[in-house]
Amino acid sequence: MTAPSDAPASARALPESRVSGWDGEACVLVVGLGAAGACAAIEAARAGASVRVLERAGGGGGTTAVSDGMMYFGGGTALQRACGFEDTVEEMAKYLLASCGPEPDEARIRRYCQESAAHYDWLVELGVPFKAEFYPERMLSPGEEGLTYSGNELVHPFRDLARPAPRAHMPQKEGQAGAFLMQKLCAAAEAAGVEITADTLCERLVVDAEGRVVGVQATTAGQTRHYRARRGVVLAAGGFINDKAMVRQYAPTLRKARFRASTEGDDGRGIRMGMGAGGAAIRMNMGSVTLPFYPPKGLMRGIFVNRHAQRFMPEDVYQGRAGELALLEQHGEVWLVLDDAVFERPVFAGGEIHAGETLEELAGEIGLPPDALAATVALYNEHAACGEDPLFHKSADYLQPLVTPPFGAIDLSWDKAIYAAFTLGGLATDTEARVLDVDGAPVPGLWAAGRTAASISSPGYSSGTSIGEAQIFGRIAGRNAARA
Amino acid sequence: MTAPSDAPASARALPESRVSGWDGEACVLVVGLGAAGACAAIEAARAGASVRVLERAGGGGGTTAVSDGMMYFGGGTALQRACGFEDTVEEMAKYLLASCGPEPDEARIRRYCQESAAHYDWLVELGVPFKAEFYPERMLSPGEEGLTYSGNELVHPFRDLARPAPRAHMPQKEGQAGAFLMQKLCAAAEAAGVEITADTLCERLVVDAEGRVVGVQATTAGQTRHYRARRGVVLAAGGFINDKAMVRQYAPTLRKARFRASTEGDDGRGIRMGMGAGGAAIRMNMGSVTLPFYPPKGLMRGIFVNRHAQRFMPEDVYQGRAGELALLEQHGEVWLVLDDAVFERPVFAGGEIHAGETLEELAGEIGLPPDALAATVALYNEHAACGEDPLFHKSADYLQPLVTPPFGAIDLSWDKAIYAAFTLGGLATDTEARVLDVDGAPVPGLWAAGRTAASISSPGYSSGTSIGEAQIFGRIAGRNAARA
Repeated sequence: MTAPSDAPASARALPESRVSGWDGEACVLVVGLGAAGACAAIEAARAGASVRVLERAGGGGGTTAVSDGMMYFGGGTALQRACGFEDTVEEMAKYLLASCGPEPDEARIRRYCQESAAHYDWLVELGVPFKAEFYPERMLSPGEEGLTYSGNELVHPFRDLARPAPRAHMPQKEGQAGAFLMQKLCAAAEAAGVEITADTLCERLVVDAEGRVVGVQATTAGQTRHYRARRGVVLAAGGFINDKAMVRQYAPTLRKARFRASTEGDDGRGIRMGMGAGGAAIRMNMGSVTLPFYPPKGLMRGIFVNRHAQRFMPEDVYQGRAGELALLEQHGEVWLVLDDAVFERPVFAGGEIHAGETLEELAGEIGLPPDALAATVALYNEHAACGEDPLFHKSADYLQPLVTPPFGAIDLSWDKAIYAAFTLGGLATDTEARVLDVDGAPVPGLWAAGRTAASISSPGYSSGTSIGEAQIFGRIAGRNAARA
Repeated sequence: MTAPSDAPASARALPESRVSGWDGEACVLVVGLGAAGACAAIEAARAGASVRVLERAGGGGGTTAVSDGMMYFGGGTALQRACGFEDTVEEMAKYLLASCGPEPDEARIRRYCQESAAHYDWLVELGVPFKAEFYPERMLSPGEEGLTYSGNELVHPFRDLARPAPRAHMPQKEGQAGAFLMQKLCAAAEAAGVEITADTLCERLVVDAEGRVVGVQATTAGQTRHYRARRGVVLAAGGFINDKAMVRQYAPTLRKARFRASTEGDDGRGIRMGMGAGGAAIRMNMGSVTLPFYPPKGLMRGIFVNRHAQRFMPEDVYQGRAGELALLEQHGEVWLVLDDAVFERPVFAGGEIHAGETLEELAGEIGLPPDALAATVALYNEHAACGEDPLFHKSADYLQPLVTPPFGAIDLSWDKAIYAAFTLGGLATDTEARVLDVDGAPVPGLWAAGRTAASISSPGYSSGTSIGEAQIFGRIAGRNAARA
């Protein structure tokens, strides 16, 4: 036991030879009790291992508990079938391979798709209820409906690359269901005999002389503790959106997103612990960025323009793709242009509203080149009148010429509107959730899941993938660690 | 000594306890003999240390030797003054801070600028000749002129953010001067008493029980060798553009660049060795991408459009920025549109040429929306006729309405044209060229320079920064290692 210190603790692995004694021991140690950690713990315990979860907060929940609880599953889940939708592993994989690019991790995507339907059944068995009702609004239902679209399955070009199916599964619970979901998972973990040690901040891994991970150094109430893992450690401690230094070094473009879908636990400690034991962190620049410009969905009848008054996406994209494209490719300088006929205020996005009797006047108000904006709208209107959008292929449902003055623009630039981000980069893992080192070889004794592991979305995020990955790869990690 | 093996060798650090004996020893070991390694070796030897350089090739040179030998220096070098240009450390820093974003590493940029003018004098003392003549073409001179522009100093918005000055310094040597430059540096290293061990591939670092880097494991003619470093190791082994697996994992967008400004040594081994000893690799997604669409510079009078027939940059940008914007922001799908009056063939870029009597016909040929292309050209022409470009602020020198049929388009998409890339991500280092670990603390005994270290350009590359950084931080690394 070392003396407490005010300096930020190191994340470099501690040699076992420097551990003078263990404060606790289990077959499997799990770092973090969010969705990934809970699923890892449940599976490890059910496989017969003794399991201890170390959680920095006062209790389980993690970032999943403050989320909406959406889970991206498919390939023909019981809920998809009950709602009348056909889906296959192959179509789900096609969509993810097309959207999670460039160079998506095909092996992990296929594993995710293959496990998906059975995992849904597992959740139901665990007592998580789902109502077999489809919510057509392509967002979180305020009611109890169980299924919706949470990606770009219906949007160009994806609608032509894979047969669309709704894949966002939502527990039967009004509004945000993340906390409810975590209650069920934590209860299952306790029922399986998992020991939960709360208020304990894990700081570094302990490795033996061969580099095998054999334990964790943690701090409880200012006291350093060492826990031994006889079989392995599962890192499930979230992402790093709340560590300013890491975001600056690894994912600088995400700094403009002023809202973070996270808890304070998303400080990158889990990723750094893995790196400190030889794990490789990959695609660390990637993030999910949501710009919730709808609801109301009628706003999709407007057109988004960049600082050159050019359109840059079909406006019927999912909020997550809107955020990615606006922040990552347009530097977060975007405006939603509307006419009086389609004008509404976004419910969530914020932004500043400008108006003008003509498009030229409007452009002057917001500092865009006036004739460029007029030309962009003229071209859009000409095609929209025929129900066409040859440039961006927005669905005809939202094509309507913008001709009724006054004209309006909602400034949805990064410093005016809500951009909510979290990180997608993290430790390299394989289909067995093993953490990989710089050689691409597993770090012995170490697994990772949830946002501590690099996501299959890189970028190209569809909502619910984070909790989906956390659960599916968390369970794989727990099973494998228990068997090691 | 271990038996030779066909399996790719691990880059994870080797514990010193597993080294049965040393095959050689020096105060400072330098991994790689390109510009960074040579400069590190010279300075370490001049500081009184015994120095051994381990080089995988048959002799020194590295990627610098196959380059044009441009070096980005400023702040008022003797050459800048002799050519009649005023420059200051502050103006140079302003330009780099504006262009090397987002979130540029200010401390390292300032150090680079501060060292720059004195480093130029050091090179001259070493015997590298420069001719005090300015070459106005903003590219490598085929003759002997010593100074040109190699960035976007004269281009919007940078020309308004910092006082422009040419900063690309070229040795007095017709054509590509990289090999010539390396001859001078290698000769200086030998004169300083540096021992050069060629045909020796470094594979991993050796660390003691405290994690301090104390040596290198290498392979010579299939035999494993261990070299001890009494004071420190400098990693100067290039970038990773030639390692497909690393590019795929860390920098997937660069895979579309089919040409690599590199040697086979740029396989990431140096970065992985550093990671294997606890170094953090940052901004690994970043790369420099050059699209040499000029010469002839008259092609800047055309307009670049993306797949939506929209312009996306001022066409008078430097080749490096053109490549970055085209590949990283437009997915490498770009066309240069010309009329008969300005049509020329690019000397280097390649590409496929299409023609049409009208813009609509041309658009049809290349698969762009016809009326969108017509609208883009009409808007451009209207302003160009007045010598203005309110959208992208191209210099008036290159503004000329495109009105003379037939119209042409050069398809400069990634699969048709030359995009030449190298990586800019690498080991995190500080202003003293120390390799930093996941805690931001120096890895004891380890320094890095050249493309093994993360660049100050991230992205926003100006040509000559790589060899400039390699030399300036290489020298700092060598001095510090010698003193350790």
